[in-house]
Amino acid sequence: MTQTVNPTTPHASVGKSTLRQDAPDKLTGRTRYAGDLALPGLLHARFVLSPYAHARIVNIDTSAAEAIPGVAAVFTSKTLGMALANSSSRAQAPLAQNEVYWCGHPVAVVVGETEAAAEDGAAAVDIDYEPLSVVIDPVEAMQPGAPLARTRSKDEVSEIAGGGAHAAVSEDGSQAEEPKEDLSENVSDTTHLRTGDIEAGWREAEVVVERTYRTSSVHQSYMEPQSITVAPSASGHQLTVWPSTQGLFGVRADIAKAINIPERQIRVESVPIGGAFGGKFGLHEPLAGALAYKLRKPVRLVYTRQEDLLAGNPAPQSVITVKLGAKRDGTLVAMQAKAIFDSGAYPGAAAALGGFILASTYRCPNVDIRCYEVLTNKVSTGAYRAPNAPQATFALESTVNELTQALEMDAIEFRLRNAFKEGDPTIDRRNWIRIGLVECLEKLQQHPLWAEREKQKEAPPELAGWKIGIGVAAGGWPGGTEPTAAACRLETDGTITVVLGTVDLTGSDTSMALIAAEGLGLSVSSVNVSHDNTDTMPYSGGTGGSKTTYSMGPAVLAAAQDARNQILSIAADMLEASPEDLEIKDGNVNVKGVPGKNVPLSQVAAASMRFGGQHAPVYGRGQVAVKNSSPMFAAHIAKVAVDPDTGEVRVLDYVAAQDVGFAINPAEVEGQIHGGVTQGLGWALFEGFSYDENGQLLTSTLMDYALPHSQDVPNITPLMVEIPSASGPFGAKGVGEPPVVPVAAAVANAIADATGARVTHIPMTPERVFTALNSAQ
Amino acid sequence: MTQTVNPTTPHASVGKSTLRQDAPDKLTGRTRYAGDLALPGLLHARFVLSPYAHARIVNIDTSAAEAIPGVAAVFTSKTLGMALANSSSRAQAPLAQNEVYWCGHPVAVVVGETEAAAEDGAAAVDIDYEPLSVVIDPVEAMQPGAPLARTRSKDEVSEIAGGGAHAAVSEDGSQAEEPKEDLSENVSDTTHLRTGDIEAGWREAEVVVERTYRTSSVHQSYMEPQSITVAPSASGHQLTVWPSTQGLFGVRADIAKAINIPERQIRVESVPIGGAFGGKFGLHEPLAGALAYKLRKPVRLVYTRQEDLLAGNPAPQSVITVKLGAKRDGTLVAMQAKAIFDSGAYPGAAAALGGFILASTYRCPNVDIRCYEVLTNKVSTGAYRAPNAPQATFALESTVNELTQALEMDAIEFRLRNAFKEGDPTIDRRNWIRIGLVECLEKLQQHPLWAEREKQKEAPPELAGWKIGIGVAAGGWPGGTEPTAAACRLETDGTITVVLGTVDLTGSDTSMALIAAEGLGLSVSSVNVSHDNTDTMPYSGGTGGSKTTYSMGPAVLAAAQDARNQILSIAADMLEASPEDLEIKDGNVNVKGVPGKNVPLSQVAAASMRFGGQHAPVYGRGQVAVKNSSPMFAAHIAKVAVDPDTGEVRVLDYVAAQDVGFAINPAEVEGQIHGGVTQGLGWALFEGFSYDENGQLLTSTLMDYALPHSQDVPNITPLMVEIPSASGPFGAKGVGEPPVVPVAAAVANAIADATGARVTHIPMTPERVFTALNSAQ
Repeated sequence: MTQTVNPTTPHASVGKSTLRQDAPDKLTGRTRYAGDLALPGLLHARFVLSPYAHARIVNIDTSAAEAIPGVAAVFTSKTLGMALANSSSRAQAPLAQNEVYWCGHPVAVVVGETEAAAEDGAAAVDIDYEPLSVVIDPVEAMQPGAPLARTRSKDEVSEIAGGGAHAAVSEDGSQAEEPKEDLSENVSDTTHLRTGDIEAGWREAEVVVERTYRTSSVHQSYMEPQSITVAPSASGHQLTVWPSTQGLFGVRADIAKAINIPERQIRVESVPIGGAFGGKFGLHEPLAGALAYKLRKPVRLVYTRQEDLLAGNPAPQSVITVKLGAKRDGTLVAMQAKAIFDSGAYPGAAAALGGFILASTYRCPNVDIRCYEVLTNKVSTGAYRAPNAPQATFALESTVNELTQALEMDAIEFRLRNAFKEGDPTIDRRNWIRIGLVECLEKLQQHPLWAEREKQKEAPPELAGWKIGIGVAAGGWPGGTEPTAAACRLETDGTITVVLGTVDLTGSDTSMALIAAEGLGLSVSSVNVSHDNTDTMPYSGGTGGSKTTYSMGPAVLAAAQDARNQILSIAADMLEASPEDLEIKDGNVNVKGVPGKNVPLSQVAAASMRFGGQHAPVYGRGQVAVKNSSPMFAAHIAKVAVDPDTGEVRVLDYVAAQDVGFAINPAEVEGQIHGGVTQGLGWALFEGFSYDENGQLLTSTLMDYALPHSQDVPNITPLMVEIPSASGPFGAKGVGEPPVVPVAAAVANAIADATGARVTHIPMTPERVFTALNSAQ
Repeated sequence: MTQTVNPTTPHASVGKSTLRQDAPDKLTGRTRYAGDLALPGLLHARFVLSPYAHARIVNIDTSAAEAIPGVAAVFTSKTLGMALANSSSRAQAPLAQNEVYWCGHPVAVVVGETEAAAEDGAAAVDIDYEPLSVVIDPVEAMQPGAPLARTRSKDEVSEIAGGGAHAAVSEDGSQAEEPKEDLSENVSDTTHLRTGDIEAGWREAEVVVERTYRTSSVHQSYMEPQSITVAPSASGHQLTVWPSTQGLFGVRADIAKAINIPERQIRVESVPIGGAFGGKFGLHEPLAGALAYKLRKPVRLVYTRQEDLLAGNPAPQSVITVKLGAKRDGTLVAMQAKAIFDSGAYPGAAAALGGFILASTYRCPNVDIRCYEVLTNKVSTGAYRAPNAPQATFALESTVNELTQALEMDAIEFRLRNAFKEGDPTIDRRNWIRIGLVECLEKLQQHPLWAEREKQKEAPPELAGWKIGIGVAAGGWPGGTEPTAAACRLETDGTITVVLGTVDLTGSDTSMALIAAEGLGLSVSSVNVSHDNTDTMPYSGGTGGSKTTYSMGPAVLAAAQDARNQILSIAADMLEASPEDLEIKDGNVNVKGVPGKNVPLSQVAAASMRFGGQHAPVYGRGQVAVKNSSPMFAAHIAKVAVDPDTGEVRVLDYVAAQDVGFAINPAEVEGQIHGGVTQGLGWALFEGFSYDENGQLLTSTLMDYALPHSQDVPNITPLMVEIPSASGPFGAKGVGEPPVVPVAAAVANAIADATGARVTHIPMTPERVFTALNSAQ
């Protein structure tokens, strides 16, 4: 990998706002998604979902369903058979076996010749349940003696609680046995993060605050629901898969494992995706693969919106207690936390990641964080943009503001004093590399919304009587990496094609085109980006973790530079010049300083892509394993108005500073910040799963589950901070995840600023705000 | 490119007969071809063909056809419009404009919702023709004053007769003007190949023979007819194409040119092909592309067998006069020839190639060959396995036998004395590299069928009264090259995938798997071969010219070796060893000589293909432009029985020696020899287009056009000669074309040996043989 990052040289392509190549088709409704694929003889699958949160399956009678005209097949876990049946993984055992674990647990699947037949069939499947006791609240579920979310065999207990469970890390990095807490078997994983001596910290602290927060399970609410189409080959032995997924190779592996065939017999095609936000990393693909494989017919499975809410994989609910201690001068000296993440019916809520986030914004010598993953009778959880960071940051940053208030200290000043900087130790015993947290906070400090905040707090006439407040919060994301490869091909018309395996969720293709254009010295309009399937594509991991541009960009840049060298070498032969004397410009290879001595790229292509050609075809290749992630930080200001009579909150203005390293495509980076903040406002004010005491989801439609509407979204001002990453392309860092992280905390702090009331439960609905106002008064 | 050819080291994979990976699906009927693709809303296209060989189109009335239920559209050249209308290329102007040029010329195309509707529509298109005078025989067509095969504008005349027409190459390589022959405008190209002084040659010659030969137009008779399916994207601006083609990029370019859109808007998919033999290098693809583009619906065009015979692109008919002069000692001193190739309605019969073949077997100091390409009112021609070589070789090798008879010299002795050897001058002023012609002849000499030929000539009891003869003939093919690229990917399960863009006509995928296995040190069962589409595939030219394994193999070997180096480098890190001390064996990377110290390839993959992985993914890349072709030669012996009462000929035994350089997959090489000889027997005895004086094709069905049946094919013994190529992978040369080249001559020479009669017209039907027998008596 050769990579030149020279911020003093103006770039020709990267750094310039560029329209997304996929935009016209998406905006005009012409893009075709995984569920749009029409195939002759296509069958349609529909779930039968459990109406109980916890019950034993006594009997399933599929005969009435099977008798319905147009119903091709009805499967239960028993009749589906294969590897799928005996797995404790939800994706690998997609249909309930002896017991349903949540209201919405798929028990059967009906495959029909039409969607209507499948739906009629699903309604006709007759299932006898014997209800079992349910446990819904994660705090209750942790208590010894709480009802168990699953009736489990001994084996299952050890499997579920295996791995890093119940481990603690001491200051020297060694894992130490510690006295086991008395916890319910519902606790599927615990992690204890420690540094320093927490008791000494409390002794040193002059001001201490402690609060407990609750967050709700939030759905990713992608526009395109979970969808997949699978078609077997004529022999039935090969499957072609068109999934709505963030990771093509992952789908291949999951299906291969489920139906026990070699991965080479499965081809996963790259399909445009209508949103994912972490929620499309593998769920129903093995089921759909098994259906097509068993029936030897193409099968489509598209969730209804209600199915997606009942049987998707939303972000986990959390209950987090944060206790902070500081000296009078504002130095943080102690941080203790208990972070409970509700994993629903299956393990995987990654509670430790929430704990890691709690410990990754402020320097503190004494830290003690206990993380718990708890099983309950609710839908199991998945990734959601910056997994567990919005929850942890809501708790941490709300408490920080309480602390600054107690210290009578400016909220940004306190944060600047304690913010992690390069060289500080991380909670996992490494050292922070250069990060941009301080610069983001300084950027906010200078912004009029903060600098002139008292002036800003006058209520406009239409909000007379409302209380105005301004709040700040910061937060970050560690970032991810994944080895990746890319190819770069010269076309006969002199354009360039970049061949990728990654899924474009957020306009990354356009960023890759900019990077390739820069590496080649071509305009971005001469660069095509093409996607490949798993049979042939250069390796790329799933799109997520804010790592796509960061990890893929260097491979694309290397491939482009490799292609450029090959082009110059062929042109050097044709022009009888040295490659060093050549440059690519306006579709030609020119001899520098010799006007008129040039050869068009199309002729370079012709010399290497024809019968009898004497030059090897241009096929640039980039392979890069970026070894270090570049943590990214954001700091936000929210200005809100609160109606003291109703508890209604309106966000009036919003400023989001973010260290993006280098904005490859500034328009897209701004778009990510807008989108992330908007989703954050959903977390803060609107979105959240609500259950009754029996585990019935009360928010299973978009009438009940409140997404922010366009009129709920204020003006959002993105402030880009560019502290270059040493590893990312042209210094770029990940961008997608940080903007959702501090939003709920910034809004909560603004509400507190407006009203003096601390709301500790998101979404901060009018009812909760009203209640908080009343208890504060 | 790094390549090790060491014939003293035994190979682990290459050189071992290996089952074709595509065989099971093809043998069990599960392979799906271009015309099998079912798409919702698929439309079906059907031609309206001209019943006249030459006529003016007075009027086309499509109204009755359009009124038929299920007919979606009817197009003529006028209504099809676009770039297609104004081209003198048959593929670019697929529908006749003002004039039809042959019986079978497509005049209109009907697109229907069903095949039946399209067929009904085609029958209902009402066309008024005004018949024009026709010219069918190429010799007649050359005469000044002959009827013109086309009414042409001045522009068309110069375009058709452009390029290398009427040029002559003198001994010093310069092109010289020479007195223009008085020829009809039907002659679209002439070439004059000369070396030495032909008149001096005749003076030196002691024995001279001269004969004129006629060959017939022969159809490639692929099992799968010409077929294509094209589907537009939802926006209509992009096309996906599934063609039955030998070259994917060529289809992309042809369609892009025809409908005038950038190539990037067309994706051509790699589809299994059911035979081609040169006949699928582009014909109807622009038409099918235009139909789908105009209608914005998916369109399928599959030729009926009759359409394929009437409107395909068969091998050209030829009329070749060869005059040879030798000294009494058997030294060839003069060769003169006139080679007329009938190009049918469009130029492109490559007469010069036929002349080149005539001059490329035997050393001769004085050569004078005139080549003529002539237009007639017949279907225009295309490539057929070793284009023009079977025709030229039939003429040359028949005459050579006549000469040896006149010299009273052994047919192989004469050939050995005059056969080209390394260092001899080629007709195009270069020097022969090391070739295997002599070795092939020597191999035949030693074979019992030749060595004991007198003993072999007893007629078996069931053929009492038949005359038995044994004939020999040699012939070759210059071979082609094309730059090519390939990629080689490590899979998560530890297998390897080779990514190619080439079309597998003849089992080349399996050869590529063997080459990759050899390069990697893996078993061939661990190697997958995957094909890509034109959006993403590494560059590869069309499959043809016996160049696929020869040109692609080195790229695959380089890609495999590159992947191997990457694997060893990762494993070296994992094993804390030096890459030089490692070897790949049985799916593991081992430290040589240290039992048990190894890492499975699947772990190497895991280290480079996962979130947070620290090694770049293995993505080997090979790019090679093989600069020199490796001419390939074959020498055959046929044993025939001739019934003197009927002229019927049966081939009783057959031996085919061929220099294959190195047989990568011997089973497949033998298969190519079997197939080529069988097709050659078709040329020799059965196949040939027959026209009446009005240009009506009398052989437009497989009832009339005689393909050899399985009982017509004798035991064929392939004798492989391996004179390694300096450029081909492991010394391999092209294999596909040579085995068809000498067959007709070997059979004719055997008939002459049996009967004393020289048959000069192929196919040598009983009628022609009977006539020759009677005139010889």
